Amino acid sequence: MTRLLVLALLLSGWAASLQAAESCVECHERETPAAVAQWRSSAHAQAVGCADCHGNDHDAMVAGTAVVDTKVCGRCHQAAYHQHVASRHGMGLHSGWGCTRTLANRDPRECRFCHEEGSTRPKSTVHCARFLTQSTEMGEIGCNRCHQVESSCASCHTSHLTALEPLRRSEICATCHMGPDHPQWEMWQTSRHGVLNSTSGDAVGPSCQRCHMPAGSHDVSFGITMTSGMDLLPAAERTKRRGEMLGVCKECHGQRFSERELARNDAVRTQSVALVERAAETIRRLDDRSLLQPSVQERPAHPLRGRQLVLDNQMLYENLSRAERLFFKMKKYDLAKAVKGAYHQNPAYTHWYGNAELKLTLAEIEAEAALLEQVAGRPPLTGGQAAGELTSQEQRLQELKRSFERGAISAEVYATEKARVLDAVRAGSP
Amino acid sequence: MTRLLVLALLLSGWAASLQAAESCVECHERETPAAVAQWRSSAHAQAVGCADCHGNDHDAMVAGTAVVDTKVCGRCHQAAYHQHVASRHGMGLHSGWGCTRTLANRDPRECRFCHEEGSTRPKSTVHCARFLTQSTEMGEIGCNRCHQVESSCASCHTSHLTALEPLRRSEICATCHMGPDHPQWEMWQTSRHGVLNSTSGDAVGPSCQRCHMPAGSHDVSFGITMTSGMDLLPAAERTKRRGEMLGVCKECHGQRFSERELARNDAVRTQSVALVERAAETIRRLDDRSLLQPSVQERPAHPLRGRQLVLDNQMLYENLSRAERLFFKMKKYDLAKAVKGAYHQNPAYTHWYGNAELKLTLAEIEAEAALLEQVAGRPPLTGGQAAGELTSQEQRLQELKRSFERGAISAEVYATEKARVLDAVRAGSP
Amino acid sequence: MTRLLVLALLLSGWAASLQAAESCVECHERETPAAVAQWRSSAHAQAVGCADCHGNDHDAMVAGTAVVDTKVCGRCHQAAYHQHVASRHGMGLHSGWGCTRTLANRDPRECRFCHEEGSTRPKSTVHCARFLTQSTEMGEIGCNRCHQVESSCASCHTSHLTALEPLRRSEICATCHMGPDHPQWEMWQTSRHGVLNSTSGDAVGPSCQRCHMPAGSHDVSFGITMTSGMDLLPAAERTKRRGEMLGVCKECHGQRFSERELARNDAVRTQSVALVERAAETIRRLDDRSLLQPSVQERPAHPLRGRQLVLDNQMLYENLSRAERLFFKMKKYDLAKAVKGAYHQNPAYTHWYGNAELKLTLAEIEAEAALLEQVAGRPPLTGGQAAGELTSQEQRLQELKRSFERGAISAEVYATEKARVLDAVRAGSP
Repeated sequence: MTRLLVLALLLSGWAASLQAAESCVECHERETPAAVAQWRSSAHAQAVGCADCHGNDHDAMVAGTAVVDTKVCGRCHQAAYHQHVASRHGMGLHSGWGCTRTLANRDPRECRFCHEEGSTRPKSTVHCARFLTQSTEMGEIGCNRCHQVESSCASCHTSHLTALEPLRRSEICATCHMGPDHPQWEMWQTSRHGVLNSTSGDAVGPSCQRCHMPAGSHDVSFGITMTSGMDLLPAAERTKRRGEMLGVCKECHGQRFSERELARNDAVRTQSVALVERAAETIRRLDDRSLLQPSVQERPAHPLRGRQLVLDNQMLYENLSRAERLFFKMKKYDLAKAVKGAYHQNPAYTHWYGNAELKLTLAEIEAEAALLEQVAGRPPLTGGQAAGELTSQEQRLQELKRSFERGAISAEVYATEKARVLDAVRAGSP
Repeated sequence: MTRLLVLALLLSGWAASLQAAESCVECHERETPAAVAQWRSSAHAQAVGCADCHGNDHDAMVAGTAVVDTKVCGRCHQAAYHQHVASRHGMGLHSGWGCTRTLANRDPRECRFCHEEGSTRPKSTVHCARFLTQSTEMGEIGCNRCHQVESSCASCHTSHLTALEPLRRSEICATCHMGPDHPQWEMWQTSRHGVLNSTSGDAVGPSCQRCHMPAGSHDVSFGITMTSGMDLLPAAERTKRRGEMLGVCKECHGQRFSERELARNDAVRTQSVALVERAAETIRRLDDRSLLQPSVQERPAHPLRGRQLVLDNQMLYENLSRAERLFFKMKKYDLAKAVKGAYHQNPAYTHWYGNAELKLTLAEIEAEAALLEQVAGRPPLTGGQAAGELTSQEQRLQELKRSFERGAISAEVYATEKARVLDAVRAGSP
Repeated sequence: MTRLLVLALLLSGWAASLQAAESCVECHERETPAAVAQWRSSAHAQAVGCADCHGNDHDAMVAGTAVVDTKVCGRCHQAAYHQHVASRHGMGLHSGWGCTRTLANRDPRECRFCHEEGSTRPKSTVHCARFLTQSTEMGEIGCNRCHQVESSCASCHTSHLTALEPLRRSEICATCHMGPDHPQWEMWQTSRHGVLNSTSGDAVGPSCQRCHMPAGSHDVSFGITMTSGMDLLPAAERTKRRGEMLGVCKECHGQRFSERELARNDAVRTQSVALVERAAETIRRLDDRSLLQPSVQERPAHPLRGRQLVLDNQMLYENLSRAERLFFKMKKYDLAKAVKGAYHQNPAYTHWYGNAELKLTLAEIEAEAALLEQVAGRPPLTGGQAAGELTSQEQRLQELKRSFERGAISAEVYATEKARVLDAVRAGSP
């Protein structure tokens, strides 16, 4: 019934809309000729005039406040709108820019990353929840150009064009889904799927859209079993999503083959995450012993977590020690290449850009730890280590406390080792 | 006569083959519709039925043991089969996966990388001869997807398609010939050859195939004067291969021009290898003095070479010191970009990704060596150095022995220096 | 009138030219068949014979000294020639290869980079003004292949082809405008402009040429407000060039939108340069205290600047300390990606390859400085620091002198600190 209503509204309004458009067009054929020409050649020109999307407040348009956002498009394109809002694209700003206004589970402190207390205007420096203080300009060009996908259909659809064929090509996804942190475009393009797409057409080699937006669905989370941070979804959701993807695979591949391949990809995810965790453990050990340079205590506090080591998805990339800088590369770049490379069936991304870089960078982090420990004159902490090997009993006690607090040593080991140090203090040994 | 025999067999068999195919197709139009549709539209549909390639043992097909390998295709495509087997593609597994079953010069210990003693089933962790322990999944997706080219025509040919035009486009080679270790696809694509190919067609800008598989030859080693590790082939073989390539160049370029360009590329190879050797020498010096962290003695033994420093083509990429990690990048990535970049006439790969990275990384390795020597309190070893500069006479003797054993100092210098240390010991100096 | 003259000359000469061509073609259809076929199919074949461009001295052609350079093409294509010479392309060799023969403002010492005193023949090793000693072969393949654009129209135009359509595609620019130091090709290709170009055509998504060579102009500096080193042009020139570019933007975008976007890009440039400057300051501090390894004094002298730290556009990439090696990456690769990424509207290049790498590498340089200072046992210099914290009074005096000479501390702080050290010396403290 909603659809019928929309149709009725359109039919009754279109003659008026298009007449009104003529008054805009008179100036805009001089001011923005390409926009007018694109509209004229589009399907919209038959039914949708300028004011239908842009409104009638010309001052607001000039000021940039009369934004044609997803809600405007959603008035007509309701199914696509609802699929979009429910999908990962519908939380684009949350995952990137730290702006959580449209989400229920926001941390109130996050508002202050972008706004002065009580104001809705953005600050001159924008604070990105997951990353760091950014200039407004970097926020706009480097972050928001992609993360605005939450609120802007024009992220993929070119404002005044309506042709569908270009929108079914993988290139449309490339502007955002590329680069060191998630090179889906690059890994697809040189995968067997991508190569067959460019040499033999979409029917033989599937585009991004054919697997991830089947039958034109705008639920881009279709068939994906991980979060964007590559954590597993809950088991029930995972089963549902895996079933969806197998349905797509089946258009070309046998069921057994597809299940085996996807299970292999899952295994690569688990193995790759384990390599990252080994590196994290080395860095936590360095932090326990205050060997990171700069130490967590010396650097600016994390906006959400304060003065503590942050190695999870809220990790920043400023003011890092060398070991953490290398860890950021592992977690944000190498892991994505290994895992997404596997799911996209790209051998070089899975192995060379992914697995080999994970292992090489892990080796580098471990070598860095050994060097820092050597320079500081302290070997790594083990359960049976004599207190005398440390430069001071105080340092040793602090290290034991931190190790215990984050669960790296048991309460028993903590008690034993602490007693041993305190005994030595009492006995007057150094 | 062989060809006539094949033809006769085909003619007598085709009616039966195609009748039998109908019985497979009945189910498979539901189970794997794309495979059936591709076969129907292919040249094979006129003469080759399902069982001709897949056999009649449906259980084996389901279990994945009825593999359609090169031998199956070779029954009809004999010339291509023999060219393939004799070429570098015919040893794909050996060069990558460490599986040497089809080769004469295998080391018996290599069998154990993949198989338990006496078993032909792969182990749950696969050991790659040239690299390291890999999970089965990484072995399949990251390694074998490309290195299976030895035994699978489907590496390049899409299983049920027979159209030749797509197979003559460079994209077909991209899935394997890309990435940090040999970005031939990337360097061709932006070379003058690649740019002319995409803007003006294959007749003006040659594809991979036009130079490396002329007239449809499946000898992909055609015209190449190096091994895949970039070592020179024996002189006679080199002369033959160079002549082959000059014959291809001549289709567009003058003989003198082509000879001069290829000679320049050869020079870039020699110069680039020399930069890698300088880095290797610095690392050997660090190993002589046990300054690598972790030391070769502390890390797991190399599967073929035991506890020794390995910097050649059998180098692993796990458990490396920082200097070796940087060396791996030089040898495996930067060198390939410089050398292959030159042969493919790509300035940015030759110079920036290749030469500049080789020199920058060499500088980094040398700075690392200086730092490690400073932290350890020991300046580098020279012939005339006083023993007193070392932290101990024992260390000095060990270092001299290692340096002599690998040929870095002469027997004469070794004897003189050793005597000097022993005299100091006798004299009671520290 | 010049054009009429050219036309008259052509008309009177063409019959003779084409007759003469026949005598070349007789041999060259065998020797260089592709060249002859391309010429035959070109517009030149109607009016321009072999000798018109190549001359009549066959020995010189064989020796490679009868070069068809821009001046030869310029005899007919005068407007393009003059635009080219006046543009940045017209100084290609100067900016890259150090060859300044065609420029007024050359430093006479630069001649010696390529030529022995008094000789015009190139040396066997070519010295690149901005970089370093290169082999002739690397100079030819890695450097000159692009920087010859100054003197060779064939850098973009394929020697014997005259079709214009391929020349209007961005691919033509890719061979040189790609790679780590200026990936314009890569960033355009995945920008919205590039994506629309490949999916919807040049009228919707502009090619390189449409913005940078509008209406076929050969002034490739059109609309650009920076030097190739990303320094700002003088204000008046900047205003003129910005106006040019806004005229191009206006074909598709509104004036206000375009101005705002370009202003944002300018801001990214300023902010990114500031990050590089922070790293430079850290390295200068290390150099003041002789903590770089190798020190500037230990390494070969810079060909133009001698034994001093060079971090500007004349920085070399050989014999660097680790901190400088990282700085080279920041300045030459990361900065270019951030700044050119912004102007080309590519989010991943602006942010991830640009901004994030700048910040991560800055962190790495600062961590390196902290480590070197720790190993040397010396904390960083501050105004109020007690002399006793340094390892020696002599070192402290040297450091103060260097810091003052490069303007890092004021004359007043220098005098006070110097007096303090000298007082301590007199008082006999260590």
